[in-house]
Amino acid sequence: MRRRDFEHLDRDDPLAGFRDRFLLPPGLIYLDGNSLGPLPRSTPAALADLVERQWGEDLVTSWNRHRWVDLPLEVGRRLARLLGARPFEVLAADSTSINLFKLLGAALGLRSDRRVVLSERDNFPTDLYVVQGLADLRGNVELRLVESGGIEDALDEDVAVVLLSHVDYRTGRLLDAPRMTERAHARGALVLWDLAHSAGVVPIRLAEWDVDLAVGCGYKFLCGGPGAPAFLYVNARLAGDLRNPLSGWFGHRRPFAFDPRYRPARGIARFQCGTPPVLGLCALREGLDLVLDADPEAVRAKSIGLTERFAALVEQRCGGHGFAIASPRDPAARGSHVALRHPEGLAVIHALTDRGVVGDFRDPDILRFGFHPLVNRHVDVWDAVEALVQVMEKRAWDDPAYRRRDVVT
Amino acid sequence: MRRRDFEHLDRDDPLAGFRDRFLLPPGLIYLDGNSLGPLPRSTPAALADLVERQWGEDLVTSWNRHRWVDLPLEVGRRLARLLGARPFEVLAADSTSINLFKLLGAALGLRSDRRVVLSERDNFPTDLYVVQGLADLRGNVELRLVESGGIEDALDEDVAVVLLSHVDYRTGRLLDAPRMTERAHARGALVLWDLAHSAGVVPIRLAEWDVDLAVGCGYKFLCGGPGAPAFLYVNARLAGDLRNPLSGWFGHRRPFAFDPRYRPARGIARFQCGTPPVLGLCALREGLDLVLDADPEAVRAKSIGLTERFAALVEQRCGGHGFAIASPRDPAARGSHVALRHPEGLAVIHALTDRGVVGDFRDPDILRFGFHPLVNRHVDVWDAVEALVQVMEKRAWDDPAYRRRDVVT
Repeated sequence: MRRRDFEHLDRDDPLAGFRDRFLLPPGLIYLDGNSLGPLPRSTPAALADLVERQWGEDLVTSWNRHRWVDLPLEVGRRLARLLGARPFEVLAADSTSINLFKLLGAALGLRSDRRVVLSERDNFPTDLYVVQGLADLRGNVELRLVESGGIEDALDEDVAVVLLSHVDYRTGRLLDAPRMTERAHARGALVLWDLAHSAGVVPIRLAEWDVDLAVGCGYKFLCGGPGAPAFLYVNARLAGDLRNPLSGWFGHRRPFAFDPRYRPARGIARFQCGTPPVLGLCALREGLDLVLDADPEAVRAKSIGLTERFAALVEQRCGGHGFAIASPRDPAARGSHVALRHPEGLAVIHALTDRGVVGDFRDPDILRFGFHPLVNRHVDVWDAVEALVQVMEKRAWDDPAYRRRDVVT
Repeated sequence: MRRRDFEHLDRDDPLAGFRDRFLLPPGLIYLDGNSLGPLPRSTPAALADLVERQWGEDLVTSWNRHRWVDLPLEVGRRLARLLGARPFEVLAADSTSINLFKLLGAALGLRSDRRVVLSERDNFPTDLYVVQGLADLRGNVELRLVESGGIEDALDEDVAVVLLSHVDYRTGRLLDAPRMTERAHARGALVLWDLAHSAGVVPIRLAEWDVDLAVGCGYKFLCGGPGAPAFLYVNARLAGDLRNPLSGWFGHRRPFAFDPRYRPARGIARFQCGTPPVLGLCALREGLDLVLDADPEAVRAKSIGLTERFAALVEQRCGGHGFAIASPRDPAARGSHVALRHPEGLAVIHALTDRGVVGDFRDPDILRFGFHPLVNRHVDVWDAVEALVQVMEKRAWDDPAYRRRDVVT
């Protein structure tokens, strides 16, 4: 394969037009949309309008006039389309960690005869931390951790909730969500999916799969901006029976009646807590509108094409340099990023960044390269591997400056 | 008194120059900074830089390069100056409701021999809702509610935490925080102050008063924008002993080590939870920088001057129209808003809004007029009362359109 082959793929790419809807620094090959999605072209003007006209001119009346009060549900309806949920099953609010706490607390309350939250030891740590904090506070909760692939064997009659990441943040492994959901249900457990690394790049059908609960993040493939509001999903058959332990005024049936007694709103609205983050919701809406314009099956097809070619090129061209591919090689079992292992991974990532190819590093030795099908071209794959080959052949990574450990890498 | 007297007060006002640092619609008299503070002139450019340069160009590297990762503590240090706290005692994060949950959960864990959270029935409802949700989840928590003024008598050896609003959201009543803190301590209770309606307009000295815990809101007098991040304060003598029940990855000692076991960060940083809302923190920083430029004693003096004259003018000029002043008439016992009661309060507020005077309404009959000393002029007081007189004399409120009940009023 040659670079020209990748140019041809771009010429025939039905999603090629989306790239222009982002503001991207010229020349940069950005392979970290799985960590922070790039800036949609429409976002600066939308935020400027929100800030200068709605906040600046209409001030407090904007809560009604510009329906700020509805933003969590309005953005939630867009998310529902993306996630294959019913319109009133998704809410944009707070952070993923906070939303996990709400749903886990509610689920354990519903399944008070069971005490186990079952997850994988390699799940994203905040998911595990949230269970630990909830267990300390509430008591009568056991976090049962199994090795990757061990969930089905560990399912028993004590399991209240199975807590899983749809796509693993390190390896990119994609779980078979309908199958795992069915298995959990067969043992009487609820299932809570963390969609942080799949929403926007993997087709998701929460209603069809009969998923109970889900959370996810707005700042990755959904391009909602740094620290964007997160989301939560509650299957409509459960919403009325679940009690949000973070019972703030926006989750009240009548927040502006200033009733001293908490009475939960009907349905998903009860999972709101405090005053919604209007700036963040405005930016998230822009990202979502862009992502929703694309055909999810085309997105998935291109995602597989990009990751597949990246993995193949690395194998072909970086063979002697000590890389191992940590992601599943079966595209059906892989999300939209490819993880490599290398003992000098941190230095390699820094050296690549200085050469205009941005991936990221995860301890102890994981290099992650995320592919956003609405942003990345096929030539980005070629050029990124070319830069990697250069870094390795010239030992460009072997520089003390590249051993620095930033706070966030 | 005549309008000219108010013009003279403005001429001599040492804070008069601050008004130009806000973007305000011409002609509008905005008396709702206690609900949503107006837009600082510097905020649009700061947000545009954050969005277009930091997010758009530097992308994920901004977490290090532009120190996004430090924003919660960096904004916290500014808040600490404002609140008379030590630099590492304040954190900007999440919403007021979420922060209340964190601190109440932590405080009840520390005082496991006591089970009562003592508050006032008229406290802001979300404060009470949060206790109710925590009690349902955790068990062994009693929310004891007393009438206004009854806290000291209700303090006994069962009280773990006294939860009070520094300024009452409806009446504007200002509590004697050092005195109440001392009384709570004398009975072995911790005290948690909600500073939502006092931060930025009432001098606060958390360290000097030896306050244990506090929370507050960024979108009112601090002008951080709609749904701005909130804040929390933990006295340094307690921070190491308190466990945040919302234990997300940003509160971990080493968030980017991806340790499966939660180990809290040292000090206040452990009260972070999920990924911080970068857009909201950027806007809040702008508002704070503006507020911090003003002398707090001058702000308080002007605040008293504005509310005092407003109350006096209403008494003098609206005597026959059925208003009662719901706020304390002693300025030492009043924050920076004045509440009136009137059976047609909702319609009066709508009629005033249509005449360019924005206050707000709280069920069942409260008209609130908030005075932001960095924004409002003395002539605003005169003109607002003049508009109120006109609305009442012409019965302009008596219009079916003004009986509409917006979602947010």
